Amino acid sequence: MPDLVNDRLIRNATIVNVYSGELLPGNIGIAGGRFTYVGPSEPPAAEVIDVKGLYVAPAWIEPHAHPWLLYNPVSMIEGILPGGTTTVFNDDLFFFLQAGPDGFARMLDALAGLPIRYRWLVRLMSQSEYDGEAQDFAMEKLKPLLARPEVAGSAELTRWPLVWKRDRCALAAIAHVHGLGKRVDGHTAGASYEKLNGVAAGGVDACHEAITKQEVLDRLRLGIWTILRHSSLRPDIPELARSITEDHIDTRRVMLTVDGPAPRAIAEGGFIDEALRRCVAAGVDPIEAIQMATINPATYYGLDRELGGIAPGRRADLVILPDLREFRPVRVMMEGRDVAIDGRITLELPRVDWDSLRMRREFQNSDLPLEVLEPIPVMEFKSDAITVSAGMQTQPAEADILGVLADREGRWATRAWIRNLAPRLDGLASSYNTAMHLLVLGRDRAAMRRAAEAVAQSDGGIAFGNGWNVPLPIAGMMMDSKFSACVRAQAELEEGVRAAGYPFRDILYSLLFLCCDFLPGSRMTPKGILDVKSGRLIRNH
Amino acid sequence: MPDLVNDRLIRNATIVNVYSGELLPGNIGIAGGRFTYVGPSEPPAAEVIDVKGLYVAPAWIEPHAHPWLLYNPVSMIEGILPGGTTTVFNDDLFFFLQAGPDGFARMLDALAGLPIRYRWLVRLMSQSEYDGEAQDFAMEKLKPLLARPEVAGSAELTRWPLVWKRDRCALAAIAHVHGLGKRVDGHTAGASYEKLNGVAAGGVDACHEAITKQEVLDRLRLGIWTILRHSSLRPDIPELARSITEDHIDTRRVMLTVDGPAPRAIAEGGFIDEALRRCVAAGVDPIEAIQMATINPATYYGLDRELGGIAPGRRADLVILPDLREFRPVRVMMEGRDVAIDGRITLELPRVDWDSLRMRREFQNSDLPLEVLEPIPVMEFKSDAITVSAGMQTQPAEADILGVLADREGRWATRAWIRNLAPRLDGLASSYNTAMHLLVLGRDRAAMRRAAEAVAQSDGGIAFGNGWNVPLPIAGMMMDSKFSACVRAQAELEEGVRAAGYPFRDILYSLLFLCCDFLPGSRMTPKGILDVKSGRLIRNH
Repeated sequence: MPDLVNDRLIRNATIVNVYSGELLPGNIGIAGGRFTYVGPSEPPAAEVIDVKGLYVAPAWIEPHAHPWLLYNPVSMIEGILPGGTTTVFNDDLFFFLQAGPDGFARMLDALAGLPIRYRWLVRLMSQSEYDGEAQDFAMEKLKPLLARPEVAGSAELTRWPLVWKRDRCALAAIAHVHGLGKRVDGHTAGASYEKLNGVAAGGVDACHEAITKQEVLDRLRLGIWTILRHSSLRPDIPELARSITEDHIDTRRVMLTVDGPAPRAIAEGGFIDEALRRCVAAGVDPIEAIQMATINPATYYGLDRELGGIAPGRRADLVILPDLREFRPVRVMMEGRDVAIDGRITLELPRVDWDSLRMRREFQNSDLPLEVLEPIPVMEFKSDAITVSAGMQTQPAEADILGVLADREGRWATRAWIRNLAPRLDGLASSYNTAMHLLVLGRDRAAMRRAAEAVAQSDGGIAFGNGWNVPLPIAGMMMDSKFSACVRAQAELEEGVRAAGYPFRDILYSLLFLCCDFLPGSRMTPKGILDVKSGRLIRNH
Repeated sequence: MPDLVNDRLIRNATIVNVYSGELLPGNIGIAGGRFTYVGPSEPPAAEVIDVKGLYVAPAWIEPHAHPWLLYNPVSMIEGILPGGTTTVFNDDLFFFLQAGPDGFARMLDALAGLPIRYRWLVRLMSQSEYDGEAQDFAMEKLKPLLARPEVAGSAELTRWPLVWKRDRCALAAIAHVHGLGKRVDGHTAGASYEKLNGVAAGGVDACHEAITKQEVLDRLRLGIWTILRHSSLRPDIPELARSITEDHIDTRRVMLTVDGPAPRAIAEGGFIDEALRRCVAAGVDPIEAIQMATINPATYYGLDRELGGIAPGRRADLVILPDLREFRPVRVMMEGRDVAIDGRITLELPRVDWDSLRMRREFQNSDLPLEVLEPIPVMEFKSDAITVSAGMQTQPAEADILGVLADREGRWATRAWIRNLAPRLDGLASSYNTAMHLLVLGRDRAAMRRAAEAVAQSDGGIAFGNGWNVPLPIAGMMMDSKFSACVRAQAELEEGVRAAGYPFRDILYSLLFLCCDFLPGSRMTPKGILDVKSGRLIRNH
């Protein structure tokens, strides 16, 4: 480009070329937020940055995120930018459920200026079935959202059996998304190879739910883009990477996700940088791992001419790295400007007025039915998120506490004995659950009432009966605080439940998914205790 | 998919899985034109086809074609389907120049029912500059074409220096194509690595003009999708494949093209099947070669959920092959139906009324200025398509014949001595040239006049002065005949020019490009004899 003076020239880089799959020495010109030059010359520039001895790679892309694990879409930025993730494809679920399509659209407008590249995935149905779901998720309400340029497709379709059964509404919704040239994210946990055929035929483009090497192979071979997950709940890359190191599959249609990690996992490990680190530790070639975190998701979303590589014309999002093993960037740029240096962001984040976006949710806590006078179901925890039914009882066994899912308007409550979650828990209340109602757990009625009262008072939150509480005023799920406050809140919550006997890794996911009607075992739902496999209610509320 | 009875089940296949990069045994279900099942089971089907011992691969995709080398878009089908190419991205150039935007749009409608998958690329400017070009190619006229669903992007941008120089009109046109989510095909013949940076920055997505291994590396590393060419004019895969066999580049962004081969090259070698054969002969892994001809172009054009692989939901376009070396399919299916068996198409091709599509072009041949009374330029042929200027002469040297490019409306003529093309050629006339005027060549004025008369009489064609002629009534470029007639015509033309001393490979490209203002050397243009490098006219007409 004759006569162009660049804003910046990055000199003496070892460049990760994700197109050719090579490491190449060179200089990088940047002007107007885009790369202008990559090669041996030194085009003129206002500022020269010498990076001798360092690697320069395209910044990471997270193709599948949930920006609501206590942190919110603003505070999450503090957690993830320092590790080099500058593009995130976010699930809309709780924002949509809280604020409706118009409110969610206003939120997209309000977040447009954030110093990160967010794209959104819009749910075609909710995660937990509820009365009124069909009206809330009517296609006429979703279509204007799906058409927006910030929306890259539909979010994880957790009810995959509908696709396999060729449900007309589900297939029509998928066809609509494809007609816009956008992607349909799947969620085919537990689907057999035979059923995955039907899911692929129905148009699901990607899945992040493989938990074994074989499940990676199954999805990839059926043409489904396969996202290897290393989340705080399911840190599976050591297993999943065997598909690459042992079976030598082509990885061009493989991506990486951390699938909504808890705040501490981000603070301690990172975001997509953590998934990269685990891949390389598992024996994956570093360039191939970087492709999975850059050009592969860019190509999947049809954005390869904009993102995912260091080449002229692309947006200048990059990381500068001391090595290709730890993936801890010394500097992160987005559109050619510094956004993080040495693990800290270098910019102020804007304040967002979440209340004006209708994100505050009210909870009633009167008349919690804490007296058990007849047999109610027992739900026994087997892992962070998996339960089994264990009969009906009127009296609790030693490892049981009472669980109540109470309507936020006070009209109904679903109850069960919760076994092996936290046997010595006196009282905990949480609006942080997929049903978005008031979940109360404990063995001490007074402590349970105090916890519920605290959550109701702050319009959402997580509270113990001993006075400790975290307000979650954004959709009952998120703090309106800095990222570091989210990390601290999670640590204190974990300390509290661990003292009460919680034996698993991730209390946030245990609380979130207790009401989730697509995970195995029995679940507390607005209609009662559900046996997921049979689809039958074990007991109405 | 419960309760589905397939139309066909292909049993006992060795399947080329382009997603995982593996050969896998399995059965393939097809219903409603799409794959429904791939795997070990045998879902019910109306017809079972056992292919034990044979390979099944996705059918080939040609990302860059010119359907006008004597054959037309209908007769080309006869030539290419038997070899397994079922999807072709075609250049619109001569149809657009002949019939204008409305006529071209009507042609797309008329060709909609053909038993092949044509997608079109629309030129943003012509190949040879001419008066009125800016009006003919006004963006307002191109936009409705670019928006059509059969149009996948813009066709090869031969004037790449405009992009490098950041010409505002060129960049705006490219941005418009990208805004539609479509692709910008490039043509960066001879561009240095430094200038390629500017071409990439300007938004050119792909290029097929690498003629050395290094040029492949240059393009690929700069983020340009790189199309390896093996055409009748430039059969370069033995050289280009060295980028793969020696440098081990990642091939995910590499495709294959035969870039408009002459009819005989198709009849004798094939189409994309020929490019595959040459790749594998050059040492490329067969699965990787097949990816370059299937999933890579499908991904490039954003069609990977529809085309390019054998997986549920994709259109059932496939080839059944005895080996992965010769790539001669025993059976070709498109959307699950047989379209060719053992090298012959199995269906009737429709008749298209080209005249009603305004594809007939008239030529005047009165007053051909065949007397040379003052010095005119000498153009010396160095290869099929490359010339150099060799001074000015009034009298021809021994290897010279007279060349006249005469306006089809008789208003002007450009003249030169043509050296080392066919010294003993008495007379040849051809409407087959990029200027779409009347090109007359020879040493015998009477023979030249007779040839010109024959071309004018048939509204386009190629004729010798001895009475032999091929009518080209479609835009002056294409026969309205079966593919076999095109092969015969080319053979006879070659025999005629070879007898007159033609020393090169491909007379069709020599005729086509003599007027092409982007190829090196000097060119006959409507404005006079042009020195391409300097952009100066050596002599006005």
